[in-house]
Amino acid sequence: MTFSSEALNQAVNEISKLPGIGRKTALRLALHLLRQEPGHTHDLTRALNKLVDEVVYCRKCHNLSDKELCDICANPNRRADILCVVEDIRDVMALENTQQFKGLYHVLGGVISPMEGIGPSDLKIEDLLQRLGEGEVKELILALPTTMEGDTTNFYLFRRLQGLDIQVTTLARGVAVGDELEYADEVTLGRSILNRVPYESSLRQKE
Amino acid sequence: MTFSSEALNQAVNEISKLPGIGRKTALRLALHLLRQEPGHTHDLTRALNKLVDEVVYCRKCHNLSDKELCDICANPNRRADILCVVEDIRDVMALENTQQFKGLYHVLGGVISPMEGIGPSDLKIEDLLQRLGEGEVKELILALPTTMEGDTTNFYLFRRLQGLDIQVTTLARGVAVGDELEYADEVTLGRSILNRVPYESSLRQKE
Repeated sequence: MTFSSEALNQAVNEISKLPGIGRKTALRLALHLLRQEPGHTHDLTRALNKLVDEVVYCRKCHNLSDKELCDICANPNRRADILCVVEDIRDVMALENTQQFKGLYHVLGGVISPMEGIGPSDLKIEDLLQRLGEGEVKELILALPTTMEGDTTNFYLFRRLQGLDIQVTTLARGVAVGDELEYADEVTLGRSILNRVPYESSLRQKE
Repeated sequence: MTFSSEALNQAVNEISKLPGIGRKTALRLALHLLRQEPGHTHDLTRALNKLVDEVVYCRKCHNLSDKELCDICANPNRRADILCVVEDIRDVMALENTQQFKGLYHVLGGVISPMEGIGPSDLKIEDLLQRLGEGEVKELILALPTTMEGDTTNFYLFRRLQGLDIQVTTLARGVAVGDELEYADEVTLGRSILNRVPYESSLRQKE
């Protein structure tokens, strides 16, 4: 594509570096910005600069935060004896949106993946072990993805935790609420029958 | 969605104002920027600011340009006696990429659309008539889209041009090069048989 303006060419080049955005979409976005008031674009660029310049990782849980200690870690009403290990900050958001978890988080920043060259030292695992070593945590919830990499990381963590007096749990896997049994995949359905729960406890959760 | 950082929240809000980008995609893009060097984001925001602050419309053809007069209008090798009327600057790019047109352009900035409240006065039509009134243009090519709005605009322009000594032409419509006849739509195939061209002239274009 040849552009009639070098500034447009540069903008399209920069926009199309974003993941999932090709040159055609980049051009559409650039023309959209040109049709708008310049003030809207200045708002966008200010917000992006602020994002990369000011956002930090919480020194305790490695969640994204504006402050050195994130709001969740700084909240005295959260239970410090339950820690939930997640892959990245989107998982924290997803769990927070359920409003069912009152403990703290630890964001690993990925999972062990020999294929992609990600080993335990690339993740916040030593940091996690140090946190657990302080003795406050009584239960560790492994909420990593059920992929080969997630399972590997779970097992690695489980091995490293031997000897510590901490209960290790993992998220319940089963048929999604509202799903039909006939459409559930075999592995999920199989696990949901193996890990069946007392009927009374499922009643209590509906209240 | 609740975010752990206000700066992230603002960035996601601003990104999701772009057309075709929802909050989930905006979050994905924001996290991508956070994983990169901040310098990459600064390059992006600098290019966007430059785009909206510096790009202007050519005073003659209303194409996007870095200068008051765009490169096409300023090029003395282009034929000033043929003018091609297009809807927007993307059409200029598409035609330029064919390298088949050596005349000049006139970008209307839209087509007449009573449904969207766009009348002749919202487009660069008076400007076009003034340009044609200068007497240099001998042929006007109507390259507007074949929609109801495009046809309306074509007809409006054709009526306004009555009395001027200018040949009015329009783009050839027909079966696309490389397409099978059985898959062409009826209107296109019908037009291509009505507007058939001498075999010799099609041979000449392949050379």
